[in-house]
Amino acid sequence: MLITKHQNIIDNAVKANHERTFYAQYPEHPKAYGEDAPAKGEAAFKSLLNQPFTRLKQHVSEGRAGEEVSPYTLEPLGITYPVTATEELVKAARRAGDRWAALSAADRAGILTETLERISGHFFEIAHATMHTTGQSFMMSFQASGPHANDRALEAIAMGYQQLRHFPEKLQWEKPMGKFSIKLEKSFRTVPKGPGLVIGCSTFPVWNSLPGMYADMITGNPVIVKPHPKAVLPIAIAIAAIQEVLEENGQDPYLCQLAADSSDHLITKELCEHPQIALIDYTGGSSFGNYVESLAAKGKTVFSEKAGVNSVILDSVKDIDAVLQNLAFSVSLYSGQMCTAPQNFFIPESGISTPEGKISFNEVAAKFRDAVTALVNNPKMGAGTLGAIQNEATLQRVNAAGQLGGKVWLNGTPVVNEEYGSARTCSPTILEVSSADQGIFEKELFGPVVLLIKTKDTDHSLLLASRMAAQHGAITCGAYTTDDTVKEKIATVMNSVFTPVSFNFTGFIWVNQHAAFSDFHVTGGNPAGNASFTNQEFIVKRFVWVGNRTYVD
Amino acid sequence: MLITKHQNIIDNAVKANHERTFYAQYPEHPKAYGEDAPAKGEAAFKSLLNQPFTRLKQHVSEGRAGEEVSPYTLEPLGITYPVTATEELVKAARRAGDRWAALSAADRAGILTETLERISGHFFEIAHATMHTTGQSFMMSFQASGPHANDRALEAIAMGYQQLRHFPEKLQWEKPMGKFSIKLEKSFRTVPKGPGLVIGCSTFPVWNSLPGMYADMITGNPVIVKPHPKAVLPIAIAIAAIQEVLEENGQDPYLCQLAADSSDHLITKELCEHPQIALIDYTGGSSFGNYVESLAAKGKTVFSEKAGVNSVILDSVKDIDAVLQNLAFSVSLYSGQMCTAPQNFFIPESGISTPEGKISFNEVAAKFRDAVTALVNNPKMGAGTLGAIQNEATLQRVNAAGQLGGKVWLNGTPVVNEEYGSARTCSPTILEVSSADQGIFEKELFGPVVLLIKTKDTDHSLLLASRMAAQHGAITCGAYTTDDTVKEKIATVMNSVFTPVSFNFTGFIWVNQHAAFSDFHVTGGNPAGNASFTNQEFIVKRFVWVGNRTYVD
Repeated sequence: MLITKHQNIIDNAVKANHERTFYAQYPEHPKAYGEDAPAKGEAAFKSLLNQPFTRLKQHVSEGRAGEEVSPYTLEPLGITYPVTATEELVKAARRAGDRWAALSAADRAGILTETLERISGHFFEIAHATMHTTGQSFMMSFQASGPHANDRALEAIAMGYQQLRHFPEKLQWEKPMGKFSIKLEKSFRTVPKGPGLVIGCSTFPVWNSLPGMYADMITGNPVIVKPHPKAVLPIAIAIAAIQEVLEENGQDPYLCQLAADSSDHLITKELCEHPQIALIDYTGGSSFGNYVESLAAKGKTVFSEKAGVNSVILDSVKDIDAVLQNLAFSVSLYSGQMCTAPQNFFIPESGISTPEGKISFNEVAAKFRDAVTALVNNPKMGAGTLGAIQNEATLQRVNAAGQLGGKVWLNGTPVVNEEYGSARTCSPTILEVSSADQGIFEKELFGPVVLLIKTKDTDHSLLLASRMAAQHGAITCGAYTTDDTVKEKIATVMNSVFTPVSFNFTGFIWVNQHAAFSDFHVTGGNPAGNASFTNQEFIVKRFVWVGNRTYVD
Repeated sequence: MLITKHQNIIDNAVKANHERTFYAQYPEHPKAYGEDAPAKGEAAFKSLLNQPFTRLKQHVSEGRAGEEVSPYTLEPLGITYPVTATEELVKAARRAGDRWAALSAADRAGILTETLERISGHFFEIAHATMHTTGQSFMMSFQASGPHANDRALEAIAMGYQQLRHFPEKLQWEKPMGKFSIKLEKSFRTVPKGPGLVIGCSTFPVWNSLPGMYADMITGNPVIVKPHPKAVLPIAIAIAAIQEVLEENGQDPYLCQLAADSSDHLITKELCEHPQIALIDYTGGSSFGNYVESLAAKGKTVFSEKAGVNSVILDSVKDIDAVLQNLAFSVSLYSGQMCTAPQNFFIPESGISTPEGKISFNEVAAKFRDAVTALVNNPKMGAGTLGAIQNEATLQRVNAAGQLGGKVWLNGTPVVNEEYGSARTCSPTILEVSSADQGIFEKELFGPVVLLIKTKDTDHSLLLASRMAAQHGAITCGAYTTDDTVKEKIATVMNSVFTPVSFNFTGFIWVNQHAAFSDFHVTGGNPAGNASFTNQEFIVKRFVWVGNRTYVD
C-alpha cells in the first residue's frame, strides 16, 4: 500500500493546500538533487535525440510522428513518438479506467504520489527537454517543468484526496419514528466522469498539463494527454514514468496515454469531440480555447486556461528604481511568453508620486526603457532571463510590433546567447500609446511587447485595466501604490472582475510567479479561463457523488 | 451578531452534512409546533385569499398578477402579486448584493439561519398555500414546504459556510531564500458571481427553490425568484419572511426578490438572458430545462433539475406483498407527480424469485394492481395519499394513457375526497408493455402512470433501466434482490450512469424520499439534471476564489 509510504507527504500537502502556506515538497534548486544528477540528466536527454522514443507502454497503430526543433540551436530534435488512433486511445483509456476507478482514494493517492517521486528522478532530463522545445532558460526549464510542476500535481492529488473523502463511504442511517426507527445502510461512491483529455501548449508543456492530469487521475479517471506537436518530449518523459509506476503496482499503464500528432494532421478536435471524452483540460490560445469551451453544450466538462491581457497599474511608489527593475525583469523573463507576464502599463499623464515628489510620465518611460536595456544587455543576466523565442510566429509578431502605432521607446533586438549562437532571441519592445488606443492594447501581444498607456489618473487606469480584464481576460495584475485607500479600491475593482492583484512587488518576487499550495493560478471568473489551480471546483467537477441505500430489516 | 445565536445550529448542520447522518433541525410533525399553530396558520392563509399580497418589500412597476387555482376546490385563490420589470429587479438585486457581499461568511450564515427561523413560524400557512396550489395533501404540503425545505436550505447554508472558509482570509507567506526570506501578505476573497435567478416549478414551489436561493445567498449573491405563475403563494410567504429578517439586520431586503409573472406574459427567458444574471437554478420540464442549460454557452452557471424516467428492477424478494405495498404507495403518493416517483417496473418474463418459489409476471402484475386498488380505495388512506392533480394537462395525459399501447391492468379513475368534493383526482393507471416498446417507456409520463415492462431476465432489466437513465435521465432507481452478487451488479451499473439505487425498501420508507443532510437529490451526472442537493459543486460554482498579495518590505 503506497499510501502508507506517502501518507505524510499527502497529509502535509492537504494541510498546506488548505492553509495556503508555503510548502515545497520538491526543492527548486538543482543542487538539491545530488552532484551527478545534472550530468546524468543531460546525458539521458542527449541519448534520446534522433531516434524513436520507446519508453511508452502504448500501442502504435498509426506509425510515428515528431517535429520538435530547439529554439536554441534551430536544429530538429529528431525524436519520433508513437501515434495511436483516437478510437484506440479512448478504448484503452476506458478499459484502464474501470480498474482504476475501483481503487480507494487512498490507494490512488499513494500510487500517484509514487509516480511523482519517479518523475523527480527525471527532472534534469525533463529540464533539457523543456529548454530545447520551449526556449525557456535552463533554470526556468528545471523549475517550471520539474519541482514546480510536481508540486502543482501534488496539490491536485491533495485536493482530490480531501474532496473524495468529504463524505463517508458507508454509514448506518437511523430515523426515529416514535416507537420504532427506520434503519438504512447507506453508501456513497464517487463515480468518475471521464475519460479525460489534457491538451498541452508549446511554452509550458509540463507545468500546465500535470494539474489536469493528476486531477483526472486522483478522481478515478483515465487521461489522454495531447501535447503541442512542437513540445512533446518533456511530457512524454513524465508519462513514461507514470506508466512505469502504474504497471509496477498492478494497474493498467494505459490509464495515462500520450496522444502525439503532427501539425499536418492534428487530432485535437477529433479527441475533443469523441463522444466518450467527458473531461477536457485546455491550455493555449483563446480562439481554440473558445471552441473547446463551447463543447460544454455537448455535455463535456471543460477546464480552460486561455489568454488574457495583464495590467500593471502605477500610482505611487517608495522607490521608483526598485519598482522598474522588478518590472523590467517581469517583462523580460522568458521573453514575455508567460501567461502571467504583464503587458499593459497604465501610467497617469501627470506621472507617479514618490517620497521625493512626482516623476513625470516621460521620466518613468525613460527609466523603464533603461532598466530593460540594462537587464537584457547584462552579460550575466540578459540571455538567461530572456531564454529563446519558442516559435517563428511569435518572433515575427514582435518584430512587427513597432508598426502597431504609438511611440516606440525601445525596439526589440536579438540578444547574443554565448552558449547558443543560433538561438532565436529578442529583447522587449516598449511602445507608448494613449488611453484612446484601445484597439492596440485590448489584445494579447504574446511575447516581449510592453505598452505604456497614458491615462488621466489612477481611477482612469483602474477603469481601463478592469474593463480589459472583464472583456478580454486577465490572469494577473500588478499594482503600485503607497496609499491604502487606493490599494483597497484597486483590489476591490480588479477582484470584482475576478483578477488577483499583486501589490508593490520589488526584489526577488515577480507578478509572473504563482506558487503551488498558496497562489491560485487563474481565477476561472474572467475570459482568461474558466478553471483555477487548484481550488475545489478544479476537482469536484470531475466526478459525481452517488448514494445507494439498503433497507435494514 | 446572529452567528452567535445560531452557531450551534450551523455547526451541527455542517457536521451532519459532512457525515450524512440523520439530522432534522425542523421537526416534521405538525404537532411539534404548538397547539394553536395549526389553527393560526390556516386562518393566516385564509386571510390572504382574494386580495393583493402586500407583505413583500418590493417596488411594483408593472401592476399585479395572480392566477392560482386550488386543485382541491378548482376555485381561484384570488391573490395578486407585484410585478416588477426585469431591469428593475436586476438593478435592485445588484445594489443589494454589493452590501451583502461585503459581509463575512459567518454574518451571512447567521442572518440566513435567522430567516429560516422566521419562515418556520409560517409553516402552517405555507402548508395550506402549498396544498391549494400544488394539490399535495396537507401532510405532504406541511412536510415538503416546511421542515424538509428548511432543512435543505440549512444544508446549503452549512455547505456554503464550510466551503467559503476552506481557505484562510489572510496569512503571511514566507519563502526561505537562503540568507534571507521573501515575505508576502496574502488575502483570499470569495467573490460572488451573481446575481442569481431561481426558477420554480408548480409541484414543489418551496422545496425545490430554497436550496438554490440559500446557496446563492450564503455565497454572497442576491437572488431573484421566478415562481411558476400557478404556484406563487408558498414561496412568496417565504420570501416576505426573508426580506423582513434582512431589513431587521440592516441589509437591503431587495437581496431576495419575487419575480411574479403571468402565463400570458412569462418573463423567464427575459430574466435568464439578462446579461447581468450569472447564476440560474431551474426545476421543471426537460424541454425548457435544456434551453436553460444551453445558456452555459453565454457564460451562465446553470443548476438544473429536469425530468427523468425512474425505474424499479424486480429480481427476487423476501416478501412479495410487503414489496408491492411499498411500491403501490410510491406510485400513488401525490399521484406520481414527484420527480422521484418510479415509472418503469422491469420484471423478468419468468417472474420473480421468492423463498416460496417463483411468482409469475402475471401474478406480480395482478398483486400490484390489487395493492394499488386497495390503497386508493382505502377511505383512511386513498385521498390523503393521492392528493390532487396539479393541473388539467396532467389529468388529460393520464386519462389518455390507456391509449399508449400495451395491456391495461388498471385504469385510473377519480377518487372521492371527502373534504373536497371538487378535487381534481385520479388513481394510477397500470399498463403492461414489452421490452420492445421503448417508444412508450423512454418518456417521462408525469403523473400516476406505471408501466410494467416484461424483460428476458434481470440482466436485461438492468440493461434497459441503465440505458433509460443514460439517455433520458433518472433521479431514482428502486431495486429488489436477495442476491448480493446481483445487488452489487445493479449498484455498479446504475451508478455508472450516475443513478442512485434504493434496495429492498419496504415499510415506512419509500424510494421517492430523499432526506436532507443524508441523501443527495439528483446526482448531476445524467440528463435528469446537472446539479445535486447539496454537494460541494452546488456551492463552489457560485463564487470565485481570488487571492491578493502585498510585498512586505
